[in-house]
Amino acid sequence: MNDFTLYTPTQVVFGRDTAAQTGALVARFGGTKALVHYGGGSAVRSGLLDRVTASLDAAGIAHVSLGGVVPNPHLSLVREAVSLARREGCDFILAVGGGSVIDSAKAVAYALAYDGDVWDFYCGKARPAKAVPAGCVLTLAATGSEMSDSSVITNDEKPEWEKRGCNSDVCRLRFAVMDPSLTLTLPAWQTASGCADILSHTLERYFSGPETVEPTDSLAEALLRSVMDAARVLAKKPDDYEARATVMWAGSLSHNGLTGCGHGVPGGKVGDWACHQLEHELSGMFDVTHGAGLAALYGAWARYVMDADYARFARLARKVLGVVEADDKKAAEAGVERYEAFLKEIGMPTSLRALGLELSDAQLDALAFNCSFKGTRTIGSFKKLDRSDMRNIYANAR
Amino acid sequence: MNDFTLYTPTQVVFGRDTAAQTGALVARFGGTKALVHYGGGSAVRSGLLDRVTASLDAAGIAHVSLGGVVPNPHLSLVREAVSLARREGCDFILAVGGGSVIDSAKAVAYALAYDGDVWDFYCGKARPAKAVPAGCVLTLAATGSEMSDSSVITNDEKPEWEKRGCNSDVCRLRFAVMDPSLTLTLPAWQTASGCADILSHTLERYFSGPETVEPTDSLAEALLRSVMDAARVLAKKPDDYEARATVMWAGSLSHNGLTGCGHGVPGGKVGDWACHQLEHELSGMFDVTHGAGLAALYGAWARYVMDADYARFARLARKVLGVVEADDKKAAEAGVERYEAFLKEIGMPTSLRALGLELSDAQLDALAFNCSFKGTRTIGSFKKLDRSDMRNIYANAR
Repeated sequence: MNDFTLYTPTQVVFGRDTAAQTGALVARFGGTKALVHYGGGSAVRSGLLDRVTASLDAAGIAHVSLGGVVPNPHLSLVREAVSLARREGCDFILAVGGGSVIDSAKAVAYALAYDGDVWDFYCGKARPAKAVPAGCVLTLAATGSEMSDSSVITNDEKPEWEKRGCNSDVCRLRFAVMDPSLTLTLPAWQTASGCADILSHTLERYFSGPETVEPTDSLAEALLRSVMDAARVLAKKPDDYEARATVMWAGSLSHNGLTGCGHGVPGGKVGDWACHQLEHELSGMFDVTHGAGLAALYGAWARYVMDADYARFARLARKVLGVVEADDKKAAEAGVERYEAFLKEIGMPTSLRALGLELSDAQLDALAFNCSFKGTRTIGSFKKLDRSDMRNIYANAR
Repeated sequence: MNDFTLYTPTQVVFGRDTAAQTGALVARFGGTKALVHYGGGSAVRSGLLDRVTASLDAAGIAHVSLGGVVPNPHLSLVREAVSLARREGCDFILAVGGGSVIDSAKAVAYALAYDGDVWDFYCGKARPAKAVPAGCVLTLAATGSEMSDSSVITNDEKPEWEKRGCNSDVCRLRFAVMDPSLTLTLPAWQTASGCADILSHTLERYFSGPETVEPTDSLAEALLRSVMDAARVLAKKPDDYEARATVMWAGSLSHNGLTGCGHGVPGGKVGDWACHQLEHELSGMFDVTHGAGLAALYGAWARYVMDADYARFARLARKVLGVVEADDKKAAEAGVERYEAFLKEIGMPTSLRALGLELSDAQLDALAFNCSFKGTRTIGSFKKLDRSDMRNIYANAR
């Protein structure tokens, strides 16, 4: 087990009708005036936003609101929110929505505690030292942003729309209100994409390298099995509260750091993240749903890297995917087939074509060019991948 | 899944030589003068205390020290520590030791933020509203106190030496420094007792009731398997770093609330805790090692309560204990036998006699009388147990 740190300070309030506790939670964590940040109209139409602001009123918390956060949230809206929050003297950022809204709120929280340009944190020019307190009312189980140290923002002010992430414990939310019943009516596509994203967050850490780490690996395998079982239930019965609750809670645990403890570089990077980075370019260029993009790329990535350590893939196959096969290479291959069969079962694509993308050779080149930062970086830790590897994986995923 | 809250704010710093980070951590969490609280001479003799105070010096943290914490820590020493900390103006409590030292430090932290008598929180007269910040350098994997909301103190000022617990998120430590290499030289008895305690913290929550909860149950089963495997390794190879690390980290996860999420009464009690309460009386009266006491009682408890829901015990038997048996009742019984065989394998007692106690009928009466608070309370949630049930279990454990 490698040395690690874990910081999960987020107060989790999980269950039915928990949105009513939002105001009291903002007060508990020192907020007096909140910027309520949200996305499209669904939080308004469902009445959730009204319930949240009523809860703020009841707790004596003043508030202003700014909606309009889109999937792959934009830097320009972050700037607008920062201006509003500064003008109005907000001391707490409250995200009401899914991962995009929370990521945008984290960027706003960074910016309010920084004199420079918040993009500095995303382009790697500076590290955030602090942030204004933030919390969320979660409406979607997918990104795990409600407990993670991660925020991903798309710079829509640049012609190439760069999508970049910033990871720091500084932005961990003070609280996360999670009511699975808010997700009961989510469309099947969004539900399955969320499950694929959650599974990927665990898999990325699982494939930090060839090493085994207990109890971390066993916990990861338990989460994978639970999410796969629940995803299968939801494909048939979308309003199953237990399955919704399983997915929502597993989503937080899959990305709060728990499944990486003892893996990776001490004090440094934990997880492989090649699939995520390959997908970021894809969704940056084509605006595909993140989880579906991950699903489309996984098989091509796994088959391309598994020769670095068949035993690791074989363990996953046996412990999670029901493979009974003594030979590691065969078990590893069978495991990828089983996982792809599962993805299809819940309606996810396992190729770019199934995702609706017919990519030209020039487009593959462009994806690999961008993902490799013009050929200047490698990605992955289970197996290091350079620009030509990236192109091969994109091509194999066609 | 029942509604739940989870609050695990403790910054975990895990790995080799992490004690050197203590001073910086105290500073990060606002401390300027620390009361260093510890137990017997081992922290002194090993040089750990010197390394910790050197780290405090390097970070510019002033400090005073008070040792002498004993297993089943005493209220009188808590009071002495409070006087010292008040006199010296300490604003941070630093525990260097195992669960007893941490529990004592938590009591000191409560007391320093309270005008009344700190025993109020343990006898149930008052609920703690706040506490002075506290952290720890952990030297023993067992109680999980480093991340738990729990503190257990023995009132040595009363003739009957009442041992009582207080649970509150208020006392969760700001940080926990965990270096498994500090535990490499622990005697076999203490190691195995620690493992038995850790397993029990998961089992108590697992048996909150008959309900299944995912992903919680699968996570709990993963932890149980990991700890059992590591305990077997340590019985033969006490200086195995990986196994020590597994046990230490699993110990924190088994008692920080993770394995109870969605079980139990929303907003109320999670877990059965009958074994713990039966054992508290035992160790209060005879000063036995807590984990060994739990091991001695488990089989008698399990066989007494399993008719409340054989299926729950059967799941444990199949998922954790390798039982292959279709009939739930038979699987449940086989599971208890397997668990007792495991306990024996690591050198733990599975009866009171094996624990060195030859109890008279009068002593059984006294234990049940005390554990039932003179017949005024029941214990357990998987199956409610009254005074006569408690006496039966003690008798069956003889």
